[in-house]
Amino acid sequence: MSFEIERKFLLSHDGWRGLATGTLYRQGFLSTDKERVVRVRIAGDRGSLTIKGLTRGAKRREFEYEIPLDEAALLLDELCHQPLIEKHRYCIPHGQHMWEVDEFIGENAGLLIAEVELSAEDESVELPDWVGQEVTEDHRYANASLVSNPYRRWSTEG
Amino acid sequence: MSFEIERKFLLSHDGWRGLATGTLYRQGFLSTDKERVVRVRIAGDRGSLTIKGLTRGAKRREFEYEIPLDEAALLLDELCHQPLIEKHRYCIPHGQHMWEVDEFIGENAGLLIAEVELSAEDESVELPDWVGQEVTEDHRYANASLVSNPYRRWSTEG
Repeated sequence: MSFEIERKFLLSHDGWRGLATGTLYRQGFLSTDKERVVRVRIAGDRGSLTIKGLTRGAKRREFEYEIPLDEAALLLDELCHQPLIEKHRYCIPHGQHMWEVDEFIGENAGLLIAEVELSAEDESVELPDWVGQEVTEDHRYANASLVSNPYRRWSTEG
Repeated sequence: MSFEIERKFLLSHDGWRGLATGTLYRQGFLSTDKERVVRVRIAGDRGSLTIKGLTRGAKRREFEYEIPLDEAALLLDELCHQPLIEKHRYCIPHGQHMWEVDEFIGENAGLLIAEVELSAEDESVELPDWVGQEVTEDHRYANASLVSNPYRRWSTEG
């Protein structure tokens, strides 16, 4: 068990491209209830099950367990809420931190999010110039929300 | 991953008592959605996370993962739906099968259920004489249902 403390941003420009190679992530949810999110993920060739509690500020209790790849695939395809979340993740070191840029595909194509994980809520972080508006508190950008309200639908509504 | 095939019965009399020693089970749910049940359990000193798909007849896809005891306790107390399900489980061999008698306590006190796990849906099973009415198809007796509709409430409604 750990606490997840992360800040989340939109991207301001494409300057991050070419700084890292992406890994394909497929993930889905057994529960999208904010108080007890249960996520199944395949990242590259690794399967995992993650449980997250309620977010308080930027801090969230998180439990992660590695599970066999074939079982993760069955859980994603047969038990998880559809559609799945699919994205390429790029890990980019900047200053003292590792940044993760998620480039969504499928139902969320067009969406790009940069995340940075912190060890304390008030930890200072040097922002890369390709990072734009902060959306840490905007629940629409939570992956669990993107299942029921995928990004593609936002533009047609707006 | 395995398939769970089980039949479930009420008890007809107390003849099973004294045939086994009980183990305390504490369990709770992160999801009670029938298509994707997520259960946290502490059985004696062992913690586990179990995911179950939709029941078709008596057959159900089941994934079980052992997790650290302290994490299971945190998940039960802080993230799972309340109230938790608490029961003593007695494992009693009879004929070719192992029977499990669950004696519920707490919010479900008074409820007793006997279960037998099978390797095929049409497998014949010798019923002990202390086994009564079959309730395999009655969803009220599913542990996930007993969270939102505990047994103690049944009698006051009836």
